[in-house]
Amino acid sequence: MRFSPADLEHPIVQAPMGGGVSTPALAAAVCEAGGLGFLAAGYLTPDAVRADVESLRELTRRPFGINVFAPPQPVPNPRAIERYAGALARRHGVEVGAPRHDDDGWEEKLALVAELRAPLVAFTFGCPEGAIVGRLHAAGAAVWIAVTTADEARAAERAGADALVVQGVEAGGHRATFDDTAPNDLGLLAAMQLVAAASALPQVATGGLATGRSIAAVLAAGAAAAQLGTAFMLAHEAATTEAHRDAIAGAGETALTRAFTGRTARGILNRFQREHGPEAPLGYPDVHHVTAPLRKAARERGDADGFHLWAGQAHALAEPAPAGELVRRLAAEARTALRDAARC
Amino acid sequence: MRFSPADLEHPIVQAPMGGGVSTPALAAAVCEAGGLGFLAAGYLTPDAVRADVESLRELTRRPFGINVFAPPQPVPNPRAIERYAGALARRHGVEVGAPRHDDDGWEEKLALVAELRAPLVAFTFGCPEGAIVGRLHAAGAAVWIAVTTADEARAAERAGADALVVQGVEAGGHRATFDDTAPNDLGLLAAMQLVAAASALPQVATGGLATGRSIAAVLAAGAAAAQLGTAFMLAHEAATTEAHRDAIAGAGETALTRAFTGRTARGILNRFQREHGPEAPLGYPDVHHVTAPLRKAARERGDADGFHLWAGQAHALAEPAPAGELVRRLAAEARTALRDAARC
Repeated sequence: MRFSPADLEHPIVQAPMGGGVSTPALAAAVCEAGGLGFLAAGYLTPDAVRADVESLRELTRRPFGINVFAPPQPVPNPRAIERYAGALARRHGVEVGAPRHDDDGWEEKLALVAELRAPLVAFTFGCPEGAIVGRLHAAGAAVWIAVTTADEARAAERAGADALVVQGVEAGGHRATFDDTAPNDLGLLAAMQLVAAASALPQVATGGLATGRSIAAVLAAGAAAAQLGTAFMLAHEAATTEAHRDAIAGAGETALTRAFTGRTARGILNRFQREHGPEAPLGYPDVHHVTAPLRKAARERGDADGFHLWAGQAHALAEPAPAGELVRRLAAEARTALRDAARC
Repeated sequence: MRFSPADLEHPIVQAPMGGGVSTPALAAAVCEAGGLGFLAAGYLTPDAVRADVESLRELTRRPFGINVFAPPQPVPNPRAIERYAGALARRHGVEVGAPRHDDDGWEEKLALVAELRAPLVAFTFGCPEGAIVGRLHAAGAAVWIAVTTADEARAAERAGADALVVQGVEAGGHRATFDDTAPNDLGLLAAMQLVAAASALPQVATGGLATGRSIAAVLAAGAAAAQLGTAFMLAHEAATTEAHRDAIAGAGETALTRAFTGRTARGILNRFQREHGPEAPLGYPDVHHVTAPLRKAARERGDADGFHLWAGQAHALAEPAPAGELVRRLAAEARTALRDAARC
């Protein structure tokens, strides 16, 4: 039997957060508390992914998820990326990275997650072909596909997905839209309703969920589980930097931008995002590679104005605590909220 | 005792929809079915408002709401509006309206709703002063204020509001933001959570709610009631035009625009919105008056590409039915959804 969200003790999923925030310790703590922990394979070498899975399995025997980026779209205008790279280099007086269009080791990672017999593989940024989903099913994995619209949900269902991660525009980090040339702005509840009208697959709802009441809300809307990212970024086990933690705990407004990676993503507005958001071209992961040295340097010097402060819209409500405590507390609050509302 | 959303048989509010869509017959049908009907005072003469209230009272004795626009913000750049008016006139080869900055009869309407002893007065586009709220309280009215952020919620609470209409970015028609020079993009669930952390006032949730499950969601999130606009636009009693009804029943994508009125609003993308959205200046209601003749002509010839197709993000799920039937069906679906979710 493949993993199903109905198997969870608590209907809470820790979102995979690439770039180092998601640690095996975080995923294991969530799993051990009765939720579902996730590893993020994105940006990592296959060896690092393997090491993460092994670390996680030393910490828990429970099922977990691992997220893989679908291959990127072609870059519509490579010259625009070169111009952006040049402007960044001049503005910041430093070397920027070379634009590079790579698929983040797509085939290797597919083979690896099958070989490692991950219980659950989730895809973001696009829809894998049905044959790939079939291969993972044959390896015992459940397959979730992140969607933001009814059309994407239909495509994911045709590909054989077991569940849909329905992402609202409230979510922090990258939008999961298949086609970033035409991003949509559907809020979570609107997306859930439109997706439910298009597909009967189980929904895992994500985007701006930070409280037990919001988890109750998506469960009442029909979700099988709620997926929380930012709400786990202050967890003790998360590898969130101090500067990023401070920003999440603050009241700063978030906005969508392509400034950091060339793909639409939500971050807390800082100087880099304000300055470069308007001119940033479409082109992922090319722009990601261009800005990588700038962001790394800013992160190392603790400069919250120089790197991507990915966060969902409700970030100010995130709480610092051990992840297992967060899972238990949020689940209890959600249950109370549902009981209170059902009594009315 | 002032009207409270807890007094409702069904926690469903019909949103006030200006420009003619909200009719006394619609509001009365919603009230009679056990929800809360609303009249929209916006754009109407005081005599027309008085006539609407009298018509409504002939149809129902139940409490109802009436919505009043808070006075508009100053126009930052009147020249930009003149340029826009000129461009529209040239592009469409017709006379456009004169830009006019008026307050929609603010003082007269305040006096009128007090004189008519409306049970509930709601404000949109800004926060009335505490003295005004006090005057309405003295006239027996409950006062609701539409908000989109925690800061706006705090201001509304300070002014003495009895409840907050929390509007998410999913909503059709105008955004309720107090300051349209700095619109935010908070989704409904994110806004509700952030507002709840800032104010304990009862919340009436609105934005993209079209199904019983979505109503269940906002009730589980803590709302006292759900307010639906687009979901009532296909109701038999609504005065929605045929062209607008067809667009709502379709799958067209919505987007925010200032093209029609100079204030950020959500409509189904059509030719006018695509062509003029990028260049449209900030300036309400000045731009509203400029485009009024164009929109009226388009509406009269049934040209859905020429007027504002206000609609929330979940518009494709709206159903044509008598409004009372909609209220009862949505309330029953919401109760079932809450019971199902609470059982998990």
